[in-house]
Amino acid sequence: MKKVIVIHGPNLNFTGIREPDIYGGRTLDDINKNILSEAETLGICAEVFQSNYEGAIIDKLQECHMLGFDGVIINPGAFTHYSYALHDAIAGVNMPAVEVHLSNIHKRDEFRRKSVTAPACIGQICGFGEYGYIMALNALNTRFENEKN
Amino acid sequence: MKKVIVIHGPNLNFTGIREPDIYGGRTLDDINKNILSEAETLGICAEVFQSNYEGAIIDKLQECHMLGFDGVIINPGAFTHYSYALHDAIAGVNMPAVEVHLSNIHKRDEFRRKSVTAPACIGQICGFGEYGYIMALNALNTRFENEKN
Amino acid sequence: MKKVIVIHGPNLNFTGIREPDIYGGRTLDDINKNILSEAETLGICAEVFQSNYEGAIIDKLQECHMLGFDGVIINPGAFTHYSYALHDAIAGVNMPAVEVHLSNIHKRDEFRRKSVTAPACIGQICGFGEYGYIMALNALNTRFENEKN
Amino acid sequence: MKKVIVIHGPNLNFTGIREPDIYGGRTLDDINKNILSEAETLGICAEVFQSNYEGAIIDKLQECHMLGFDGVIINPGAFTHYSYALHDAIAGVNMPAVEVHLSNIHKRDEFRRKSVTAPACIGQICGFGEYGYIMALNALNTRFENEKN
Amino acid sequence: MKKVIVIHGPNLNFTGIREPDIYGGRTLDDINKNILSEAETLGICAEVFQSNYEGAIIDKLQECHMLGFDGVIINPGAFTHYSYALHDAIAGVNMPAVEVHLSNIHKRDEFRRKSVTAPACIGQICGFGEYGYIMALNALNTRFENEKN
Amino acid sequence: MKKVIVIHGPNLNFTGIREPDIYGGRTLDDINKNILSEAETLGICAEVFQSNYEGAIIDKLQECHMLGFDGVIINPGAFTHYSYALHDAIAGVNMPAVEVHLSNIHKRDEFRRKSVTAPACIGQICGFGEYGYIMALNALNTRFENEKN
Amino acid sequence: MKKVIVIHGPNLNFTGIREPDIYGGRTLDDINKNILSEAETLGICAEVFQSNYEGAIIDKLQECHMLGFDGVIINPGAFTHYSYALHDAIAGVNMPAVEVHLSNIHKRDEFRRKSVTAPACIGQICGFGEYGYIMALNALNTRFENEKN
Amino acid sequence: MKKVIVIHGPNLNFTGIREPDIYGGRTLDDINKNILSEAETLGICAEVFQSNYEGAIIDKLQECHMLGFDGVIINPGAFTHYSYALHDAIAGVNMPAVEVHLSNIHKRDEFRRKSVTAPACIGQICGFGEYGYIMALNALNTRFENEKN
Amino acid sequence: MKKVIVIHGPNLNFTGIREPDIYGGRTLDDINKNILSEAETLGICAEVFQSNYEGAIIDKLQECHMLGFDGVIINPGAFTHYSYALHDAIAGVNMPAVEVHLSNIHKRDEFRRKSVTAPACIGQICGFGEYGYIMALNALNTRFENEKN
Amino acid sequence: MKKVIVIHGPNLNFTGIREPDIYGGRTLDDINKNILSEAETLGICAEVFQSNYEGAIIDKLQECHMLGFDGVIINPGAFTHYSYALHDAIAGVNMPAVEVHLSNIHKRDEFRRKSVTAPACIGQICGFGEYGYIMALNALNTRFENEKN
Amino acid sequence: MKKVIVIHGPNLNFTGIREPDIYGGRTLDDINKNILSEAETLGICAEVFQSNYEGAIIDKLQECHMLGFDGVIINPGAFTHYSYALHDAIAGVNMPAVEVHLSNIHKRDEFRRKSVTAPACIGQICGFGEYGYIMALNALNTRFENEKN
Amino acid sequence: MKKVIVIHGPNLNFTGIREPDIYGGRTLDDINKNILSEAETLGICAEVFQSNYEGAIIDKLQECHMLGFDGVIINPGAFTHYSYALHDAIAGVNMPAVEVHLSNIHKRDEFRRKSVTAPACIGQICGFGEYGYIMALNALNTRFENEKN
Repeated sequence: MKKVIVIHGPNLNFTGIREPDIYGGRTLDDINKNILSEAETLGICAEVFQSNYEGAIIDKLQECHMLGFDGVIINPGAFTHYSYALHDAIAGVNMPAVEVHLSNIHKRDEFRRKSVTAPACIGQICGFGEYGYIMALNALNTRFENEKN
Repeated sequence: MKKVIVIHGPNLNFTGIREPDIYGGRTLDDINKNILSEAETLGICAEVFQSNYEGAIIDKLQECHMLGFDGVIINPGAFTHYSYALHDAIAGVNMPAVEVHLSNIHKRDEFRRKSVTAPACIGQICGFGEYGYIMALNALNTRFENEKN
Repeated sequence: MKKVIVIHGPNLNFTGIREPDIYGGRTLDDINKNILSEAETLGICAEVFQSNYEGAIIDKLQECHMLGFDGVIINPGAFTHYSYALHDAIAGVNMPAVEVHLSNIHKRDEFRRKSVTAPACIGQICGFGEYGYIMALNALNTRFENEKN
Repeated sequence: MKKVIVIHGPNLNFTGIREPDIYGGRTLDDINKNILSEAETLGICAEVFQSNYEGAIIDKLQECHMLGFDGVIINPGAFTHYSYALHDAIAGVNMPAVEVHLSNIHKRDEFRRKSVTAPACIGQICGFGEYGYIMALNALNTRFENEKN
Repeated sequence: MKKVIVIHGPNLNFTGIREPDIYGGRTLDDINKNILSEAETLGICAEVFQSNYEGAIIDKLQECHMLGFDGVIINPGAFTHYSYALHDAIAGVNMPAVEVHLSNIHKRDEFRRKSVTAPACIGQICGFGEYGYIMALNALNTRFENEKN
Repeated sequence: MKKVIVIHGPNLNFTGIREPDIYGGRTLDDINKNILSEAETLGICAEVFQSNYEGAIIDKLQECHMLGFDGVIINPGAFTHYSYALHDAIAGVNMPAVEVHLSNIHKRDEFRRKSVTAPACIGQICGFGEYGYIMALNALNTRFENEKN
Repeated sequence: MKKVIVIHGPNLNFTGIREPDIYGGRTLDDINKNILSEAETLGICAEVFQSNYEGAIIDKLQECHMLGFDGVIINPGAFTHYSYALHDAIAGVNMPAVEVHLSNIHKRDEFRRKSVTAPACIGQICGFGEYGYIMALNALNTRFENEKN
Repeated sequence: MKKVIVIHGPNLNFTGIREPDIYGGRTLDDINKNILSEAETLGICAEVFQSNYEGAIIDKLQECHMLGFDGVIINPGAFTHYSYALHDAIAGVNMPAVEVHLSNIHKRDEFRRKSVTAPACIGQICGFGEYGYIMALNALNTRFENEKN
Repeated sequence: MKKVIVIHGPNLNFTGIREPDIYGGRTLDDINKNILSEAETLGICAEVFQSNYEGAIIDKLQECHMLGFDGVIINPGAFTHYSYALHDAIAGVNMPAVEVHLSNIHKRDEFRRKSVTAPACIGQICGFGEYGYIMALNALNTRFENEKN
Repeated sequence: MKKVIVIHGPNLNFTGIREPDIYGGRTLDDINKNILSEAETLGICAEVFQSNYEGAIIDKLQECHMLGFDGVIINPGAFTHYSYALHDAIAGVNMPAVEVHLSNIHKRDEFRRKSVTAPACIGQICGFGEYGYIMALNALNTRFENEKN
Repeated sequence: MKKVIVIHGPNLNFTGIREPDIYGGRTLDDINKNILSEAETLGICAEVFQSNYEGAIIDKLQECHMLGFDGVIINPGAFTHYSYALHDAIAGVNMPAVEVHLSNIHKRDEFRRKSVTAPACIGQICGFGEYGYIMALNALNTRFENEKN
Repeated sequence: MKKVIVIHGPNLNFTGIREPDIYGGRTLDDINKNILSEAETLGICAEVFQSNYEGAIIDKLQECHMLGFDGVIINPGAFTHYSYALHDAIAGVNMPAVEVHLSNIHKRDEFRRKSVTAPACIGQICGFGEYGYIMALNALNTRFENEKN
């Protein structure tokens, strides 16, 4: 069974918390349940992780590498735009990574259009909200399938 | 039944043609069959279109708008990086668009990291090869489902 | 009688088509009628042309040059911002050209503030909507009058 | 009767003064007479003003605002390229403004291609010499007509 | 009673420690006492926090949000110039924030002149040393007063 | 008794004049009264000055220097972004200066984020509206107090 | 016998047409005859093609690839400076390409000094007028000769 | 007898006023006396002028043009770095101009290294303090002598 | 006996872990042993520290300062390129620091060529692999020797 | 008989020397023989010159000018990218110059894409290896032929 | 008696040589005679030197330093724009230097507006042709006079 | 026995010459003796070379290559920042090179932070003064030792 770590970067733990009656009630917990359920459907063993610490995310990536995880799905939040350390961590571990953004980063502030982490990933998905994680899971799964053949 | 137009930009008709014994035999025809098959599975009526002409792609987008298409999947090829006319065309038609790139544009030439068309789309997918179109179809389908509710 | 070609660039054929009950019903046809009527009033023989193809616009400019047209009114749409080929075409034909933009390009996206075609024209008019074409016709007419003296 | 202030920025009072036998005899006075005459024809009450002082132009704009003027035609001269104070003044008064330049600013020094004042105006006209003011008057007049309806 | 969190970013815990006989004896403790005393005078319940960890500051901001704090005073130290994650954290919590810098950041290295966090705050104060925190407290207090009316 | 000059740059005389029923009725006169009242409370002799002329502001700064003023509070308006002459004037007179902006300049147009005058001041306050002047007065007052000791 | 396609980009069909008594009578037809004659001398089967359409040039390149042509000589005209699609087309076909410019592009407008197509070619020749095509033909011929050995 | 206007820009009237016991006692008056004395020696009729107003300097230049002055010596102070209006004024009047700076502008802040006014002058002298004006007078005098021959 | 802290930044704990049969077996532990052995030879008391947390490295630097360490050897990893907080930490502690990079940062990605931490160090060594730490130790030792004399 | 100087810039004397068994045995001597032989065939008197000194190349150009040479072929090596002195030397002598590069400079490091010397030449040839010199000789010869007519 | 070295940079030895009947007959020899004659008048012992070699100019500067020269007049020609080595040489020798340019470098190519050598000089003179050297001599002489007092 | 060439670039021959009583008496001769003594200790045959000529340094590098030297230590002085020719020379010879700078180039002028020669070296050492050469010698020696094994 393939193991995949799903990493949420800084501030993503606040998704859905602030003013739920306005922005809707989908919290990070809800999103994670959705992800884990899809993973189960696909026969993938997924684990979720969130931190506001760049260092904690790098630690987690290294730990998963040591534990033999097979893939990474990562939404680096604002680290996307300056954390070369995160770039190096993704590049340095032995797992294909997919970068996910809830919003279309090309439609927002100029600084959000540049990803320093994406070059270390196999691909990037943005603009599909929570569904982006499902897409990423399926993309990794397809890759796992192809590798079998 | 939802209608989706899948547009391939310049040079994509050459995918898989040049030196098939080296690069593998997946031509644009093969890819299109894969797309149409997935669409059928999803109950979506998809149509494929390729052109090396910026104008022809704009015409096609407008035509689909007039015919009441429900969504666009577009790989603008190199137009991605300079065709503001294509950006305006996508922004001006009444259909959600998903931008797809076969390769991870963040890993290549500096000029390929900037998309002038992406801000007019709902999202962007890059780096998953042919499978990116399948992801895009599913993303549009999910959107269609959500709109029903 | 002086002959003037009025050229509309990419996506301008969609003016007024999308959601007419919201944006108002002035289509490109309506605008063209207005232009032709003003031309008639001024005693100018005007012809209108629209294309989403950069090549077709260059062809048209060359054709008008060969046919002895006396002036050009051109709204290059998004080509304004990158089509050096269009710049060269305007510079290469034997007719004074006036560049027109419906909106005030200085109020919009940064990339829209730069015109690569304007240096090949005698002047530029922007921000006056459909009325900009009327201004351009009158400007050419005044020029024709002055040349007679 | 609509009131319009026509403002000429720095150095424009020298138009036609220097070497009249070479550059022709059209002084700012001649141009102003032409403007006032056209205004009269259009039934507009126009007033002309010139200053080499940024502060004086801002004062004038504010004064006209207080006096209930209906429109502004302004050729900011070289202030076009750096006077954010003038931008703020135009944006802060209650009158539609039209920016006019005698020459085609896109054909000259690189620094002349950028207008910091134009974003505060409804539109910009350049390259038509003295006739540009006539165009601006007519554009404002058309706007006044439309507002009546 | 209004609650305000005062956050000191990286290296600010070293204020006054290094070579006290040269730079003077005002340590962060001294500064905090001053802040807390002013808060007490204003009838505000203030809490101070310092960390060299970007993640810890984001955690703290989120925690205060959950605890219903009413305002933030933050000196992000060098995070000011690159921590988009901190920007997002400030923007994402439900409290008005005031950015404070001990020195005038406009007089120092070029890179210190840009604040990526300030756009998420209501205002910024720099150059007044320790007194800047007192100003910030009073500014928040005035805001609280105004909100009552 | 300490003397402080409070300088308002271009267009600030229009604060509260335009559409008072919309933007509220706080005119520059109201703001000045507030400033003078606070000054009186602090035992400071304050004088207010406004001009749309860069030259007049420089003259005023020099005059206050000659008259032995003890401090400057200046809101340079749009001069903030390009008037190196004003920078030099502030740097050249013998008085500590505080720069004040009504709005948070970091939240607005890109060009407003850079202050060429701030390096000549002791500090900068922005985003607190009219209250910023009160903060500036108190900051100068604290400085005067400290100098006594 | 080796086959070479000679492609002329936008506006090059107007070479020699405009004001022949001034610029001389060498039209594109004359130039093409010269090229074909030299090709015959070298024992190369050359074909000439001109279009103002970026798409048509890409189509032509692909067609020649399919027909087994052995080399490309291309003067991309203004496409040189922005057509990444043309770059990709040249890079994607199986033929060595030589870029030719009539004028010395380093002596003209700043934007003409950059070629986005040249990196896809084996070499570039500029500044030798019509003779540049002859040089390109000979360069390809020499290459063909060397490949035989 | 040749007439020369010597113009001092903003803040130069403060030369030598501030802290004379430190910076030395050479005020602008002293410098002007030196200039006028050298002019007398050379048989030139010189006039000195200082203003902190950009507009006043432009007015003065135009006035001198109308009065038939033969040359200009100008130290534009900080206007050097942004006043395109001053550039246009110098370029628009009928007199050779020499730009003078007391300090070596290449040794100071980056923004001081660029002069937007120098292209309108015949030459520039910087770094020689007060003596630079003497050099400028002699340069103009030599030019006057040469013109006689 | 002199005390030196040797700090390894993010991802350096993964040196030699990934695919040891390919990249060789030199792990960070091996490197540290080498460093400690050289330190012993030189009569220096060295301590090693690694963290993926920017904050932890700042904490460590401050702690060593408080404990009276005499020198720092730091390989900031990717923090080199953006951590101004680390720059400030190094600059703020009372110990000479030497920056070390295993690879030649001038041969790699453009972003790796700029070090924001180096200006706070006495010197930088790059490109000598593990031996760079030995060089740094010797450089500090030489400095210690010189200070004795 | 026409005289042509062929100049090879810095490091070109090392062509073919380093590891001849790997890179092939074509040294600069071999290339020069080829050039001289082609010159003889064309009836041109050619001289070759190589130096690693910018000054020596300028001296040589001036000397050839004084000796009445008729043309220059120059491969400026790395001087191409920064030697404005060489640009001025080529521009200052009385001979048409052709710039040659062995490799396609558009395919290499970014800094190699800019030639500061090319604007002083009649044309540039790059990417054809040693054969580029033959092309240059023929281009000059054709020019000499044309001048005769 | 004061000793001054006058250094002419690359290509200045060609002044007046090329086409003397067109550009006039003032060669570098003529200019040098003029300089030496003025020096004699001023009681200065001047020596002239020209080289196209950057290294030779640095050598000369060092030699003059060792010989106790009192001042430098240098026209670095095109070295002005990139020779940081020359900058360091001027800064490293013990003599005040004056930079002279025959033409007004602010009126020419963009790259000529920046001097990397001027920051090492006491001042710069440009635009006065040959007379600039006379100005420089007098400026040094005045400095020598002042130093005596 | 390994042979190493130690190259000092422009102006380094002036180290310690100017005002020895102020800057200390360590001349280049002293430094060279130190280097040669260390080399002897290491059993390396070192040779020192200094020139102010870029060409002479390139010649020397090539000569050493031909003579079979085993390593290069080079302090390119100011050539570091623009001499692409020197970069190519280092890259083109068959010897590992170490770049040394006496000062920490990251602490000085902006232009000194970029090295165009470092990418051709194996590593760079800066900020350790004269001791940097000793470090470089030891680094090369260690490399020689490693190569033996």
